Amino acid sequence: MTGQRADARRNYSRILAVAEAEVARHGAAASLEQVARTAGVGSATVRRHFPTRQALLEAVFQERIQALGRRAEELSRTEDSRAALLDWLRDFVEYAVSARGFADALTYEPPTDTPAGDVPAGDAPAGDVPHSCGAVLDSAAAPLLRRALRDGTVRPGVTFHDLITLVVGIALATEHHAEPSAQAGRLFTLAVEGLSPSP
Amino acid sequence: MTGQRADARRNYSRILAVAEAEVARHGAAASLEQVARTAGVGSATVRRHFPTRQALLEAVFQERIQALGRRAEELSRTEDSRAALLDWLRDFVEYAVSARGFADALTYEPPTDTPAGDVPAGDAPAGDVPHSCGAVLDSAAAPLLRRALRDGTVRPGVTFHDLITLVVGIALATEHHAEPSAQAGRLFTLAVEGLSPSP
Repeated sequence: MTGQRADARRNYSRILAVAEAEVARHGAAASLEQVARTAGVGSATVRRHFPTRQALLEAVFQERIQALGRRAEELSRTEDSRAALLDWLRDFVEYAVSARGFADALTYEPPTDTPAGDVPAGDAPAGDVPHSCGAVLDSAAAPLLRRALRDGTVRPGVTFHDLITLVVGIALATEHHAEPSAQAGRLFTLAVEGLSPSP
Repeated sequence: MTGQRADARRNYSRILAVAEAEVARHGAAASLEQVARTAGVGSATVRRHFPTRQALLEAVFQERIQALGRRAEELSRTEDSRAALLDWLRDFVEYAVSARGFADALTYEPPTDTPAGDVPAGDAPAGDVPHSCGAVLDSAAAPLLRRALRDGTVRPGVTFHDLITLVVGIALATEHHAEPSAQAGRLFTLAVEGLSPSP
């Protein structure tokens, strides 16, 4: 039994690693069949772990989102509150540029007039991925912004939602550029520094 | 003959106005059949003016792009070079937010290693719309940035391509927000002012 469980865990990890690469390449349109072929397992095995494309995307995003959350926690213990926020945002830019489906998914904003209990829990709609990712990001990294605002190292009035939306936009707009990562980093710097010449 | 020509011109203008509204609503996926129905003409009439969806999109974008070009020219004659650039960019944000297919189309960047004559002139690929729009924008509005850079009212090193890409990203990221135009304007202000508190 233990050997079987260890096998299943190894299978899961391998499938997830392949799925991450596939989603990075093809975004939300990544094919479960292609994931199975590349991972060297049958389609049935992939479907046992991830019954739907949605379940697979959720797993792919959650892994990286958790990592971004841990990174935020590390940075919250560093001294310079502005540097901590900017370091985290640069990691987030890097991730949003590399994970195509993710930036697309994060553009979704749940309508504010929908009661929270409106969505049947069993059959999660597409919006649930960004929604839960957004919640994880929010609880992990929004404290970095709050600390910087408290220290007066960031312009008052800026919200965490502003920053996330701006980064997602930069990722979407640079997706087809020759060097997405470099161009996204350049635009992020522009937005941080603003358009005015240094005093 | 003249009456017929005047009729055709009126038809063309009506179809184009309907097409603009359809493209604003559905982006590049706008339906030629729906345009015909709303304009109260036959599909054949629409197809005589716009043989392909591509031709229709090009016409829709060109109209508004020409208007943005004329606006840039007006602004180039005002005194404050920074205000002129920012006013134009705000108009461009407004347009990119309202015209869904347009922001999508502008994310396309032609590969730099393709010779200019490589594309058969008769059968324009999807890339041609943003490409020609980009050229019009560039020749009309890039002088506003050059003047501001010369006056030292904008941070050195910023390129026109940076500004266009940033605005397109803001439009894409706010597309599904409750109030796209307000949120896009807010993010544009953030990018212009930067993240630092005022000195």
